[in-house]
Amino acid sequence: MSTVAAETIRQQLLFLAELDRLKSVIRQSPLIDRSRRENSAEHSWHLAIFALVLAEHAEGVDPLHVARLLLLHDIVEIDAGDAPIHVAGKDRAALAQEERTAAERIFGLLPAPQAQEFLALWQEFESGTTPNARFARALDRLQPLFLNTLTDGGTWTENGVTEQQVMDRYGPAIESGSPLLWQEAAALVRRHFAD
Amino acid sequence: MSTVAAETIRQQLLFLAELDRLKSVIRQSPLIDRSRRENSAEHSWHLAIFALVLAEHAEGVDPLHVARLLLLHDIVEIDAGDAPIHVAGKDRAALAQEERTAAERIFGLLPAPQAQEFLALWQEFESGTTPNARFARALDRLQPLFLNTLTDGGTWTENGVTEQQVMDRYGPAIESGSPLLWQEAAALVRRHFAD
Repeated sequence: MSTVAAETIRQQLLFLAELDRLKSVIRQSPLIDRSRRENSAEHSWHLAIFALVLAEHAEGVDPLHVARLLLLHDIVEIDAGDAPIHVAGKDRAALAQEERTAAERIFGLLPAPQAQEFLALWQEFESGTTPNARFARALDRLQPLFLNTLTDGGTWTENGVTEQQVMDRYGPAIESGSPLLWQEAAALVRRHFAD
Repeated sequence: MSTVAAETIRQQLLFLAELDRLKSVIRQSPLIDRSRRENSAEHSWHLAIFALVLAEHAEGVDPLHVARLLLLHDIVEIDAGDAPIHVAGKDRAALAQEERTAAERIFGLLPAPQAQEFLALWQEFESGTTPNARFARALDRLQPLFLNTLTDGGTWTENGVTEQQVMDRYGPAIESGSPLLWQEAAALVRRHFAD
């Protein structure tokens, strides 16, 4: 093997080892069996499959590209932590800066061309301006909504979140990615709060 | 929304809820920080990113297709459990049958055309006959090998596995997916057993 190929692989393995830490970043959402809270690595896996399964309900999206955005979107949490939707935290500008720094450090572990490619994918997700990114962001809201409806309200119950707050906090992102999915998700929310 | 679309989404969400159970299937491999063992959902996430990062070292593979195979490959463990590489278990034919039954039940939760598509992807991984599947199977061996070298031997130390056994159990699958990656992985193994 050439020294260049060996060095490339070694750099890539260092990055892949660093990713292991995302398995220890704990989110607010419960597993459906309520045995524990979800971590950001398994959340990302779940979301990538949401993309493969549900892409037919969005216009102009590439399921595999959306899956890739979702596989990578939470990696910054290794440094910046998870920012819960219902809990007040640091201000948005400070968090965005912290996540940008994290993206540069972590993707920067890769060989330069790949670092640029991954950083651009992360930026695409963050900006949410392409149909693929909008759909990815919709799923990132839909999955915890769905887990909450299956766990007696999950984080909504824990944080005293009202039906209107749920509609406000999840609706715009999900509807902008897929009006059809939002119609179905809103029905789940209404049913939850009616019970 | 048409009744058909709504019914399709409901079926798909049932499938996605069922997948949540993979987060509770525990593998033998430790996390790198040794705080606990890895589960099959986060393992699948990690592997999908291995595919995106390392595909350049294999011939004729499509990184996103390999990632998709890896996202889906362990779902059968929801019913059939994880089969550890170093621990004697049920015989291979019985396990293969159990996994086939699991694939039919779980992917069968999806609407019929999608169930067929996902079952075919799972079958492609299992058969290991396409370059994409061979590379996916190589990564499924490489990742736990790599975790072991970073955790003082991990499951090798636990099970008294020798250097020769590691070479025999991991080598053929990794080398057939990517000779270059096997060259680097074999060096990691030799270094581990030399220390």
